[in-house]
Formats: sequence, C-alpha cells, structure tokens
Amino acid sequence: MTREEEPRILLGHGDGGRLTHDLIRSVFLPHFDNPANPVLRPLPDAAVLAPPAGWRLAFTTDSFVVSPAFFPGGNIGTLAVTGTVNDLAVSGARPAYLSVAFILEEGYPLRQLEAVVESMALAARDAGVQIVTGDTKVVEHGAADGIYINTAGIGWVPEDLHWGLDAVRPGDVVLLSGSPGAHGMAVLLSRGDLGFQSPIRSDCASVFPLVQALQGVPGIRFMRDPTRGGVATVLNEVAQGSGLDVWVEEAALPEDPAVSAAARLLGVDPLYLACEGRVVAICAPDAAAAVLDAWRAVPGGLGRDAAAIGHVSASRRLPLGPRPEPAVYLRTALGGTRLLDVKSGGELPRIC
Amino acid sequence: MTREEEPRILLGHGDGGRLTHDLIRSVFLPHFDNPANPVLRPLPDAAVLAPPAGWRLAFTTDSFVVSPAFFPGGNIGTLAVTGTVNDLAVSGARPAYLSVAFILEEGYPLRQLEAVVESMALAARDAGVQIVTGDTKVVEHGAADGIYINTAGIGWVPEDLHWGLDAVRPGDVVLLSGSPGAHGMAVLLSRGDLGFQSPIRSDCASVFPLVQALQGVPGIRFMRDPTRGGVATVLNEVAQGSGLDVWVEEAALPEDPAVSAAARLLGVDPLYLACEGRVVAICAPDAAAAVLDAWRAVPGGLGRDAAAIGHVSASRRLPLGPRPEPAVYLRTALGGTRLLDVKSGGELPRIC
Repeated sequence: MTREEEPRILLGHGDGGRLTHDLIRSVFLPHFDNPANPVLRPLPDAAVLAPPAGWRLAFTTDSFVVSPAFFPGGNIGTLAVTGTVNDLAVSGARPAYLSVAFILEEGYPLRQLEAVVESMALAARDAGVQIVTGDTKVVEHGAADGIYINTAGIGWVPEDLHWGLDAVRPGDVVLLSGSPGAHGMAVLLSRGDLGFQSPIRSDCASVFPLVQALQGVPGIRFMRDPTRGGVATVLNEVAQGSGLDVWVEEAALPEDPAVSAAARLLGVDPLYLACEGRVVAICAPDAAAAVLDAWRAVPGGLGRDAAAIGHVSASRRLPLGPRPEPAVYLRTALGGTRLLDVKSGGELPRIC
Repeated sequence: MTREEEPRILLGHGDGGRLTHDLIRSVFLPHFDNPANPVLRPLPDAAVLAPPAGWRLAFTTDSFVVSPAFFPGGNIGTLAVTGTVNDLAVSGARPAYLSVAFILEEGYPLRQLEAVVESMALAARDAGVQIVTGDTKVVEHGAADGIYINTAGIGWVPEDLHWGLDAVRPGDVVLLSGSPGAHGMAVLLSRGDLGFQSPIRSDCASVFPLVQALQGVPGIRFMRDPTRGGVATVLNEVAQGSGLDVWVEEAALPEDPAVSAAARLLGVDPLYLACEGRVVAICAPDAAAAVLDAWRAVPGGLGRDAAAIGHVSASRRLPLGPRPEPAVYLRTALGGTRLLDVKSGGELPRIC
C-alpha cells in the first residue's frame, strides 16, 4: 500500500454521521468492548454504573498532547489510560471506569489511531479498568497536531480512607517508588533533535499495584504520582499544602544510570522530569519500613528500587525577619544544601 | 492596552509549574469554586464524591472544538457545560458533577479564556452542576485552533428508571421540544464567510428542566438531544436501535422562521443541523399529551414550541424481495414521502 492509499481520518469521521459510526464500530468497539459487562456496546450518551455500597466516588480528568505521540515504552494511548488510572490510584481509589475522547486532525493515519486504541485497550486491561463512554471530534488539517486524547476516570474510595496533606506531620518520611525521570527523558530524546540515541524507555505504567500493596499499612499520609514537573514539583506541593519543609537526601535517591547520564549531558535534573509509573508517598516514621517492604514485593518489579528519600520537618524560623515560605531542600551527596524550587516556565512542553 | 501588551497563554501555562498554578488560582478557581461544597478547592488529582443511596451513576464525556469559539447565543464554554449536562439529562440522570480539561494554543488571549471560563461557571450554576476537577494543557502556536475543551460528567439515575431503544414499540409517538437547527445555523453564519447577517442565536441551554418535567409521567421510552447530525440523525439511531421505521410529519415540525429562511437560502435542511437545547422523546401514544403539557409549562419557555412530530411503525415488508432496513421517512407538507437518511460526510465540521 502506498502512502497515498493509506486510510486517513477525514473531517467526516468527526461529524456524528455514518463515518463516525463506522469508526466507532470498526476501531473503537472491537478494542474497548467488554463482553462481561457490555456498558459501552449500546453507545449510550452516558454510561450508567452501579457504585459498590459503602464506597465513595473518585473522579478525575486529564488531556494528553504528548509529542511525539509514539515514544520508547508507550504512546499517547498508553499514557492517556495510565495517567488517569494513576490519578485515581494515588487518591486512594480503586480505578474502575474511564471515558475516552479523541480530537483528531484531518489526515491522521487510521493505522496509527488503531495502534493507539489497541494500546489503550491493553493498558486498560492491565490496569483493571473499563472504558465505558467516549467521543470523537475531527478538526481540519493544521488545527491540531495529529491526535489529542482526553480521559476522565471514576474509581471507588473506601469510606474510611482519608489521605491528604493536612495529615502530614514533622518527622514524616518521604518515599519514592523508583528512579525518577525516565518518561520525560524518553519523550525528550524521541523528539530526535538532540542528536543522540539512547535505550531509555518511559516508565509509563499503572501504579495501582503500589497503592494496593499498602492496604492495611497504617500511617500513610499522602500519595501522588509525579508527572509534569516531576518529583520536585510534587514535593513543593507537599510543602505548600502542609506548611512544612521537605528535605531530600541526594544520596538516597534511586537512580537509572542511563537517565542520569543523559540528564548530565543535557543539563537537566531528573527530579524535574515527568514520571508516569512512580509514586511519591508520605508516611509516619514507623510505617516507612513496611511501605518499602510492600513496594519491593509488588510482582513485576514496579517498586523494586523504592527508597526513603527524605523527611518532612517544621518550617525553619529565622531568629529575625519574616518566617520563610515552606520549601523543599536537597542535601547533596557532597554535604551541601540546594533549594528545589518550583520552576517557572522553561519546562518541557507536551511531555504528557 | 495595546494588542501587544495583552496577557496571553504561554507554553508555561501548561507545564504544571508556577504559571499553571497561577492560572488555576487566578482564572479557574475564582469561577469554579463552590464555597458550600469546596471539592475543587484543594485541587486534588481526583475529586471524591458521595453518591446518594439507591441511585446509579451516569458517566459521559464530550470534547468541544466549535469554530468560531464565540457565536450568537453562547461560546465554546457554554457549549462544553450544557452539552455534557444534556447528555446526562437525556439518559434520565440528574446532572451533578463535571470535569473540565482545556487544550490551549500558545498565544491564546487570557481575556478570551476568562470569558469562556465565566460562561462555563454561569452555565454550570444554571444547570445545577458543580465543576469538581480539571486539567490544562498548552500546545505550541499552530498546534491547536485557540481553545478546545473536554468535559466529562457524572449524574445520578433513579434505580427504577429504564429508558432505552429496546422499550420503543410500533405506534409510539415522536416528540420534539422546540424548533430544530438554531445552534448549527448560528455557528455556520457566525463564520462570516457566507456574506449575510442574521438574528439567529444558538439554542444552547440545559435541557434538564425538560427531563425533570416528565418525572412521574408514565410511558416515556427514550430521550436524546439532537446535536451533531441533528434531529434526522437521532431518528435514524431510533430506527436502527429499535428495528422500527420512524415517520415524521413535515407539517407538524416546530419552526423558527429565521432558521428556515436561512436554511432555504443555503440549501440545507434544519433537520440535519445541530441543536444544543432541544430534546427528542419517544413515548407511548397515551402519554404524548401529558409530555407536551409538561414541556409547554416549563418556566422560561424552553418547551413552548414542543410538538408531536411523528410516530414509530413496524418496518415495511415488501411483498417480494429482502426486508428493507428500518428507516426514517418524512411525509412532506405536499403529501409526498422523502427518506431522511444518515448523511455520510459533508456535514458541517466543528459545530460543537
């Protein structure tokens, strides 16, 4: 098949008429249908779902505009499923249902769309979630960059779970489930304009097994997945939200040698690069060992490199002058101290 | 303020760092926050919600790419709220919660974003829904057309409500809550390349009052809001889903004279133009009068022009040859019969 003959997305695929129906029936339904619970099959405007008794509902959304849409370790579809699954998981929810909405550029190759959809179906099965409703829009050539995806997600939260930054106390331990920055670096390098190749693959994965492994572990205060802005940005949210300082020990950070080497070469800090399969957790000091044991035992090695990377402390009060803002500090391997501030602009665009 | 000084969306507004936080705190939170139920205020990755006991959950999503983003009677924000509210309402759900996700083009004027956000907040208040979670991505100049919005919605469905096309029977009546096509025509004309001005405003509105007015009316089979593809496309979905023919009486159709005049001039059929504040309902023959009475009594005049526009009948079987596909027929004012087929391509792109 020559490039000219390749089936492509037409504006009509987004108009709600026959082409839209064809696309749904030939591409989306075969991948997203679940014969055991065929909620999506009637293509309802809204899926109707029964919440388990005694649970609360978690609800989240993310749009995905990653460039390029395909990168080592995944693609925009994998990311659209795991990103929303992970937002639910770190809220303490069991991820259950996803909506999927595509914005497609006229001329987008159908074969690529199908590859994305197939990855989404696989990622959804892996994560134990079901895609139950969706939407497709097509815009003219030039009005989007190929494919954008939005997912919204619903999960069930146990009645007795109350994580939050208001639960964080001085002395609490900061844990990281694995080395930071592989996703951001994989996407950055796959743009191909940096002139070198690398074996780095995105860490893109459902983190629900990491959350589930902590069921019954007391002393969990807060969890979040460090996506845009990376671990440093999540820790700044912890500092701002709790009013406490966060101290990170550089020597304790789990490290991927390939990511570190590329980061040194490019002059970027892996603590600011997006992860898509990592969890930052804050827990009581006497819970840290149990969290690390549980994470390291998760099948598949998702938490193999988990480490306690720092702690929370009362915000420093200077003898004179105004009280400083709560902040995040890195104790370097050489014994120095460096502020891990929130970056203002200059971040990598379209990393997820 | 000159055009150059006007604050604009920067790539940094989408990077999850300080500019993103500034945008959320200065633009989104002031509009979307609900002091009485401050679910959104902690900016959680996922909102946690308590479903009322004994209700089921409706879940839906739509992306909005309407061009132009501002049109007579509304803008992309109004549409993003009412579109998803309406998908919930016609599923029999009481709309409750929305997620909102923006894809913004670098350089998009902040003032326009704020106007959109303000419209969304107003539309949400009018419709009685709460925006509880969200996301913002920014893509480079040229990688989107200003602003795209996705909303996903959750609503509560009574346990005893079971609408669906499988409930439709021969003899059932087809009802339309008002004149068709104003939204599609308003957007089309506001593109400005047709060379004439008109007073037509989009019919964009929450249809939940129309659904709520039918509480306690027995014999409702099915409802849908005729958006992309218009009334004709919804009726084709009825025919396909029920296996029955649908007959529409042209003389019975409610009509907006301005829409009809513009449609004649442009050679388009209002039955194929998108509505954003209309409901198509199918009900038992003895329920039709009660539905019309209830709709016409809805405060604000949303159902003032409601009419019974046709009926459902057993699919015609020809004496010889294969059984024809279920179809939609229009009995014209002159006594002829015309097939209202599903259009294949050629629809107006980016109408919602």
